Amino acid sequence: MKPITNIPTLEDIQRVHEAIKPYIHRTPVLSSKSINAIAGCEIYFKCENFQKVGAFKMRGASSAVLALSETERQKGIATHSSGNHAQAVALSAKLQSIPAYIVMPENAPIIKFNATKGYGATIFRSGNTITEREEKLNEVLTKTDATFLHPYNNYDIIAGQATASKELHEDIEDLEVILAPIGGGGLMSGTALYTHYTKPHVTILGAEPKNVDDAFRSFHSGKVEINETINTIADGLRTNLGNYTLEVIRKHVEDIITVEEEEIINAMRLIWERMKIIVEPSSAVPFAAVLQQKERFQGKKIGIIITGGNVDVERLPF
Amino acid sequence: MKPITNIPTLEDIQRVHEAIKPYIHRTPVLSSKSINAIAGCEIYFKCENFQKVGAFKMRGASSAVLALSETERQKGIATHSSGNHAQAVALSAKLQSIPAYIVMPENAPIIKFNATKGYGATIFRSGNTITEREEKLNEVLTKTDATFLHPYNNYDIIAGQATASKELHEDIEDLEVILAPIGGGGLMSGTALYTHYTKPHVTILGAEPKNVDDAFRSFHSGKVEINETINTIADGLRTNLGNYTLEVIRKHVEDIITVEEEEIINAMRLIWERMKIIVEPSSAVPFAAVLQQKERFQGKKIGIIITGGNVDVERLPF
Repeated sequence: MKPITNIPTLEDIQRVHEAIKPYIHRTPVLSSKSINAIAGCEIYFKCENFQKVGAFKMRGASSAVLALSETERQKGIATHSSGNHAQAVALSAKLQSIPAYIVMPENAPIIKFNATKGYGATIFRSGNTITEREEKLNEVLTKTDATFLHPYNNYDIIAGQATASKELHEDIEDLEVILAPIGGGGLMSGTALYTHYTKPHVTILGAEPKNVDDAFRSFHSGKVEINETINTIADGLRTNLGNYTLEVIRKHVEDIITVEEEEIINAMRLIWERMKIIVEPSSAVPFAAVLQQKERFQGKKIGIIITGGNVDVERLPF
Repeated sequence: MKPITNIPTLEDIQRVHEAIKPYIHRTPVLSSKSINAIAGCEIYFKCENFQKVGAFKMRGASSAVLALSETERQKGIATHSSGNHAQAVALSAKLQSIPAYIVMPENAPIIKFNATKGYGATIFRSGNTITEREEKLNEVLTKTDATFLHPYNNYDIIAGQATASKELHEDIEDLEVILAPIGGGGLMSGTALYTHYTKPHVTILGAEPKNVDDAFRSFHSGKVEINETINTIADGLRTNLGNYTLEVIRKHVEDIITVEEEEIINAMRLIWERMKIIVEPSSAVPFAAVLQQKERFQGKKIGIIITGGNVDVERLPF
């Protein structure tokens, strides 16, 4: 597959979807009468917690690996991540038989470290700061000549993440609103693009923890804003936007709703208890936004992308 | 529907299945590559945690309510339960517009109390011992003239519980082994009957916590044995068999495997972490049995009934 060098078109997303199908699951869309009764609207959850590696990141990583040239494939791919992106890159590389080099900070959860190692990636440990992670990554890149896979500021990745909303729209045809959480903005950008191309009347919204509201501020200021703390339970949403994702989000997202930590925990708990599925805190952020603004969503038919289900069951917020 | 007065036949089960369809969900059958890799066999989980009220009990209760006469319907139904049966009876009664009277012990979890109340049942509190519960129930029966719905020693209930395995066999045609956990034996009896009638070559196994191994002992002694403690995390499996369920289990179940508490917790955790679904401890008992005896199940195609997903997320064993 040729790499995507500009904002992905509808054809790009369709082509990527066909190409990554052998490497991903088509995840189910679930709904719950009791959740709908609580929210006062009709919610369809696209369950990427059932995706390979337990998160939507598998879509983007598979897409990016497919876009490598033959020379690049031989040299392999590298990234730094403490979480789902690490596992997705490692498994995509394994499934496509290319080497993967992952820099993981010392504070990465042991379960994610083991999973990444289990997929056969070569792991390098680094310090926890972003500077230390990037320094180690640069060392690795110099040594291996591998291709760096940015977790979100990459059009192949964005096109891959877009396929979750593609499947959701295919399964539930007449959604009125679609919501995704915003971390680096890869999922949000992909969701916004596909929805804009195929369902122009659907309202596209983002949701973000108030404690890391960089996307909200970037959305309004027009430049990439930085989080001063990463003090949120939604560990997948601590990163800032990139210039690629900011551009798409500014163009196609109508609004970004920010939610408090306790709203996230409450929404997560409702999903666990009522739907009997395990979702990570980041996944609960859009549902928390719906519950915060019930009147705005009253009676509407809403799609929400559940990002993943990788949580440490020994350290729950309940 | 006429009440079933003897061991349910295949026709009884088929008729009950058609009749209860408007009141139950057809739940999904899930499998996981990573679970299969760990177990060394191919496991298909029938996910009754996604059933209405979060448990298979909804099947039996719906069946039993449909078997009431018009006079009985007017007077309503009564039972005592601290758990899933209470909710199932309450919701079945609500959906079929008849009164329900539920005796719940003081130690019933508040979440189950609220759910049962939310379905519109009239609730009576009792002491926690079985004697206190039965005394209160008898009071209620005298006052209301309602029909008592035994949670498992009842052929309409058994035929209803059988429909879970019916759907599983319909979805996965060539299972070699089927496993269910044993509490009072309603689910196990139904599973054994339907499997015996339609898939006579499938091995039918039960699984039970070693700490409450009444079914294991009853299976071997031929009479209903009593548990001396109820010291197991699998709270749905603390009850003893009844004479109806013992007869069916002795006739059609090949073997009962008992498992330790830590095996249950380990199996439950694997299902949570690998499959991203919430299952109650009772649900994990058959999977624990498979993990205990890997050689016995090596390479086999196995069906397991997941009983439910009603757990208190604030009191997990991990």
